[in-house]
Amino acid sequence: MNFVDIIRSKRDGRELSREEIDFLVQGISEGSMPDYQIAALAMAIYFQGMSERETADLTVAMAYSGEVADLSGIAGKTVDKHSTGGVGDKTTMIVLPLVAALGVPVAKMSGRGLGHTGGTIDKFESIPGFRVEMEHKSFIEQVNRIGAAVISQTGNLVPADKKLYAIRDVTATVESIPLIASSVMSKKLASGAEAILLDVKTGRGAFMKEKEEAIELARLMVKIGQRAGRQVRAVISNMDQPLGRMIGNALEVKEAIDTLKGKGPSDLEELCLVLASHMLILGEKETDFNRALNRVREVLAAGKGLDKFMELVKAQGGSIDLDDENYGLPEAQFKYPVIAERSGYIAGVDAYMIGYTAMHLGAGREKIGDSIDYAVGIELNQKTGDKVAKGDVLAFVHANHEEKGREAVKKVLHAYQIEDAIFQKKPLIFEVVE
Amino acid sequence: MNFVDIIRSKRDGRELSREEIDFLVQGISEGSMPDYQIAALAMAIYFQGMSERETADLTVAMAYSGEVADLSGIAGKTVDKHSTGGVGDKTTMIVLPLVAALGVPVAKMSGRGLGHTGGTIDKFESIPGFRVEMEHKSFIEQVNRIGAAVISQTGNLVPADKKLYAIRDVTATVESIPLIASSVMSKKLASGAEAILLDVKTGRGAFMKEKEEAIELARLMVKIGQRAGRQVRAVISNMDQPLGRMIGNALEVKEAIDTLKGKGPSDLEELCLVLASHMLILGEKETDFNRALNRVREVLAAGKGLDKFMELVKAQGGSIDLDDENYGLPEAQFKYPVIAERSGYIAGVDAYMIGYTAMHLGAGREKIGDSIDYAVGIELNQKTGDKVAKGDVLAFVHANHEEKGREAVKKVLHAYQIEDAIFQKKPLIFEVVE
Repeated sequence: MNFVDIIRSKRDGRELSREEIDFLVQGISEGSMPDYQIAALAMAIYFQGMSERETADLTVAMAYSGEVADLSGIAGKTVDKHSTGGVGDKTTMIVLPLVAALGVPVAKMSGRGLGHTGGTIDKFESIPGFRVEMEHKSFIEQVNRIGAAVISQTGNLVPADKKLYAIRDVTATVESIPLIASSVMSKKLASGAEAILLDVKTGRGAFMKEKEEAIELARLMVKIGQRAGRQVRAVISNMDQPLGRMIGNALEVKEAIDTLKGKGPSDLEELCLVLASHMLILGEKETDFNRALNRVREVLAAGKGLDKFMELVKAQGGSIDLDDENYGLPEAQFKYPVIAERSGYIAGVDAYMIGYTAMHLGAGREKIGDSIDYAVGIELNQKTGDKVAKGDVLAFVHANHEEKGREAVKKVLHAYQIEDAIFQKKPLIFEVVE
Repeated sequence: MNFVDIIRSKRDGRELSREEIDFLVQGISEGSMPDYQIAALAMAIYFQGMSERETADLTVAMAYSGEVADLSGIAGKTVDKHSTGGVGDKTTMIVLPLVAALGVPVAKMSGRGLGHTGGTIDKFESIPGFRVEMEHKSFIEQVNRIGAAVISQTGNLVPADKKLYAIRDVTATVESIPLIASSVMSKKLASGAEAILLDVKTGRGAFMKEKEEAIELARLMVKIGQRAGRQVRAVISNMDQPLGRMIGNALEVKEAIDTLKGKGPSDLEELCLVLASHMLILGEKETDFNRALNRVREVLAAGKGLDKFMELVKAQGGSIDLDDENYGLPEAQFKYPVIAERSGYIAGVDAYMIGYTAMHLGAGREKIGDSIDYAVGIELNQKTGDKVAKGDVLAFVHANHEEKGREAVKKVLHAYQIEDAIFQKKPLIFEVVE
């Protein structure tokens, strides 16, 4: 076996054997396969695709290319949750405490944000004192004690995927469904949970612009998981406009707390209830979806989700002051209103543009290693379907830099599409794949 | 402009602008475009192709990426000849003296052999004392004095093509007609001749296995040349079996001399006469093909081609002894016969297998930089269409190593396909493209 022959096979549309895929992944993680061959392979896969079996083999080989988390010390069936990346997606901070309060243990390894999408780890880190690094033993112990823990992904998880993704990123080979599926699922398999709930985003602010592509990706990921002996479900949800009203790290923590208090925006609450219900089923605490949903609603209404959230924050060294208007979170210096220039109905709030504007304000990273300003971000006052009059406040820009703030106001205004007629709103949740 | 966006454009099937192509070629030659991006681009081109305009732009940009030979000091219209690579192809050694004797100046820069195909420079170097390195001034002066000179390609010619080809070679992206065309033609444009005759080989021993592909490649190269202001013709010739009877450097020089004496194998003589006639027309010494052919025949019959060959050899320091049976060329120690195991008609002599067997004997290079044994090679006693009886000598293996020699005998026997019925022989020359 050699790399060139395998690249040629894929180029010519042949299905690669498990041995060939193992050989490739070994070459990628050991560094014996040169970058230019990885790039040529990725482009050949972009054009020729991979079968479900090939994708599953690639995923498993990458998952075991480095360290694999051992969650066997956790009592009960562990359930992981993963979002393919959106704008204003703070569901993990809400869903985690809700299911933990219902007895589903969640040992969550999360990533940092890049580009227009935020990362759960950055959001938790905007809570003063919150620690995202932990010894494996303490991690397991915390999950057993309070039902939940969140840590930053370790450096040794899925080295083959890290390498492959870094090359795809600079060779225009990101947009390949089998490669996206294997990248996501290799990390999930290596994270060790027995069951996985995927939140696959679709729309303007998502990786997958088209619903059909998102469903295809979801089906493939569910099948890969099943082939690897894990139970997987996927919820396909809309990411045309940002989720909830807040975009930016501390702003999103605030909104998560509000939601756990029962005062969150309806779209965010709805998605969190649905995700939590599916996790309850995956965690074998419930078999029927409607019963699961009722139980999650009860826990939320009783404030048990908020209690669990506070317990989690405390366990990881963070401090939240529920009596403070802003919960003691970092606040930006300036708050600029974005004013409607015409009356009408909001036909859309471009999630991609909002995500990028938030990133440029300092809420996200243009490239790996950039520093983040936790306080800045965007607060949406009006969302799709709302009726507005000229002069109304559409949104606020939270900034720590005047020029950047004014620049962001223009961009946010541009992200709002205002029309004379009411649009048929797309549903928030399109489909569940299992 | 940036490399990733251009790769994405090509991946999505868009035509690249001249500015984008210039930017790529500059990046490749300067080293600012990383190898993995070059590889991804090559694979995207493999799948999406390039228009004639894109291919011409790429060719011109590569041709001018390094030094360009200045042949303006040569009196008369310079004509170059290029073969896309075959087995036993010693036509340059015969055609060059023939057209030079007829007043067409040929300033030839040639390459070395790699893989199963030989290189003209290696063949000339098998003549004791023959020098292939020369100052540019002496090169021009020799062409003006005797009408011909042959030198090895300099290191600074088409650096962008060198880099791109090196990456294509190890990423399964060699087999792309626009990339092959631009690689060949960039070198020809940089070599400076005003007119170019291409000998495009097709068949088992050639790069282009299918005649249709060879014709497509030839048409594209002719058009690229025309767009760059050069006159180009292409002869499409058969390379199912080796050309002539000799394969190996000194053996091929011997056969070239025999052919110039009028005692060469008929296929080799035929192709040389046709190639020389087209060069005469390109060099504006004749307008009608049949008249050109008659003039070449006359020159050959009068021994003027041989005289010019001897003049060329002498001018470049080589020594040939026409009175010696082997012309004073290096001879191998062992000569093994290859014996027919059955009677019948020869349906084919696999040029690829013969080429590789000769390479393994030491006549060629497996990789760049390997040393060569000039004396070794294969002598074909019987060729396609010949009738043989069991026990007849099909071929001789000329070797300097007993084990390699015996190994080669087996392989050569295997390259011969003997059948009960006579096959319809394919023509030697399929088509002329201009």
